[in-house]
Amino acid sequence: MDLGTVALSDSTKEIVIIDQTKLPGEKRMLRLSSVEEFYNAIKRLEVRGAPAIGVFAGFAMYLCACKIEADDFDSFYAAFSKDRDYLESSRPTAVNLSWALGRMDRVAKDHKDEPIPSILEALKSESILIQKEDEEACKAIGENALTLLKPGFGLLTHCNAGALATSKYGTATAAMYLGHERGYDFHIYCDETRPLLQGARLTAYELASAGMDVTLECDNMVSALMASGKIDAVLVGCDRVAANGDTANKIGTSVVALTAKHYGIPFYVCGPMSTIDPSVKDGSMIPIEERDPDEVTSMWYERPMAPAGIKVFNPAFDVTDHSLISAIITETGVFYPPFSFGN
Amino acid sequence: MDLGTVALSDSTKEIVIIDQTKLPGEKRMLRLSSVEEFYNAIKRLEVRGAPAIGVFAGFAMYLCACKIEADDFDSFYAAFSKDRDYLESSRPTAVNLSWALGRMDRVAKDHKDEPIPSILEALKSESILIQKEDEEACKAIGENALTLLKPGFGLLTHCNAGALATSKYGTATAAMYLGHERGYDFHIYCDETRPLLQGARLTAYELASAGMDVTLECDNMVSALMASGKIDAVLVGCDRVAANGDTANKIGTSVVALTAKHYGIPFYVCGPMSTIDPSVKDGSMIPIEERDPDEVTSMWYERPMAPAGIKVFNPAFDVTDHSLISAIITETGVFYPPFSFGN
Repeated sequence: MDLGTVALSDSTKEIVIIDQTKLPGEKRMLRLSSVEEFYNAIKRLEVRGAPAIGVFAGFAMYLCACKIEADDFDSFYAAFSKDRDYLESSRPTAVNLSWALGRMDRVAKDHKDEPIPSILEALKSESILIQKEDEEACKAIGENALTLLKPGFGLLTHCNAGALATSKYGTATAAMYLGHERGYDFHIYCDETRPLLQGARLTAYELASAGMDVTLECDNMVSALMASGKIDAVLVGCDRVAANGDTANKIGTSVVALTAKHYGIPFYVCGPMSTIDPSVKDGSMIPIEERDPDEVTSMWYERPMAPAGIKVFNPAFDVTDHSLISAIITETGVFYPPFSFGN
Repeated sequence: MDLGTVALSDSTKEIVIIDQTKLPGEKRMLRLSSVEEFYNAIKRLEVRGAPAIGVFAGFAMYLCACKIEADDFDSFYAAFSKDRDYLESSRPTAVNLSWALGRMDRVAKDHKDEPIPSILEALKSESILIQKEDEEACKAIGENALTLLKPGFGLLTHCNAGALATSKYGTATAAMYLGHERGYDFHIYCDETRPLLQGARLTAYELASAGMDVTLECDNMVSALMASGKIDAVLVGCDRVAANGDTANKIGTSVVALTAKHYGIPFYVCGPMSTIDPSVKDGSMIPIEERDPDEVTSMWYERPMAPAGIKVFNPAFDVTDHSLISAIITETGVFYPPFSFGN
């Protein structure tokens, strides 16, 4: 499923993305070339999803590097670092952003004794490799997840950890795509995922476009849905997994996990190894982004849906306690509790 | 807090209500006089909230009775029953509707040997009594709930079980109003309550209008909110309580209850005794209304927020298992588990 999530156009020195804030009503492509455009695309969620942000950041650092006018490595690297820090400040929670920026940074330093054009070539190769690895990781996550699922299963997912959040296949959705290709006949349920409705706008859109059986629900219907017996397993993505398995993911994920636990339904976290951050001991150390109140009170609405000036609690992520997670599924295999991701 | 939820205008033979589908943007009063208008006002949620629907139904039956042209009781009662059955079919879950219709029905039959004008007088008195009792019940619920709360508490509520859902004070909000009058300095958190946003549009509106400290959150933020330590107790209303304490209330209530249980936060159900239905053994026997998919995919939005034609799961209520409820607070006192409401 190639939806045009993130692509490098090397000839024009641009990143081409589909503007995810306009889906599903409008399929608008954006062509971005300056570091400010890159920063804003992440900040405004035109590109989103932890793995996709990682891929985007790789391309972004390569294109930023191409623009640097410098004769020696030190002045090149000073400018490169400035762009890296600026991009890193765009969103705090997903580790893939800093992970990809760190990879690009190491490549630059590893080639510091070479001429600038060679450094650029190495950066380009690395950014393409990040994308290729992401695509392969997603497929492997799907294969691993599929071993836990049976044909005819009802599957619930939250937010969008789909093809729009990665290079291809998605993470939480990878087994859905692979199962669909193989006639597994899954029944997929999507949480709409307030406040920005990534589940309704993106996941329901991409899975229905692929021809799957998709049903949309509001986030607060999850208990009624699970009580009805329609859900056999939950698959979600992740923005950062701590060493003990605590998982930061889109706000509401831990509510789904709690509810799944109550009804005895397996709750699976899917993500590439790059999302695991062993440097973080547990979930309490993961920074959680708080976003604009306007997202809750009016952003998607024709008219204000709350009293003017009302105070708003709007964290973009929550942390799911490791005790609520049945397994963490990565490209290298399925991890079961007790989780312990070492350095 | 008199917001004009439901009022009888006897001189014009109308019920006057505030149109709750237009709040908080527009304060529009509706004057209703025909049985079709009464039915539609309930169906379209222009009047909503289990107790308010009960009060409305009492006035509605009185005004329907005034319009009946009949010379004897049998023909009067035939027309009266037809209107009663029609109104009863408007919404299935809240027991207060059939409870109030049943009270009016009994009054009509109790006076069957009297002339029609006497029957009408008795019906009018009964409908006014239902409203008066509701107002007194709400105040008593508030006093009883207040014994469980301390000054400075953070309180979470879901949907609107406020003054807009009753005659005055509300049920879940009664202790908030009384505490506010007495300087308890509560910090109130409101779930927005998808799909129709009664929490954002109605509860946040009425509590902020009364000068309370109110913060709005999306339903799926409840785990993050409780993890932050900001919530000391949850207060919700109810549409029907079964004999064993299982409670039907606005969709999402059981998710809040599950989450509160996980974090060890007391979860209180507030409602008048008329909401308890001992004829229903447990929650599985409570009929749950499923509403229009359009409420989820587009109703409140400027543009469609989901792919065209997507399947939607849209139950209006869920059942909270009695094991998740710390206490049920009524006008007669506080009931603790194990719950057993006899006939």
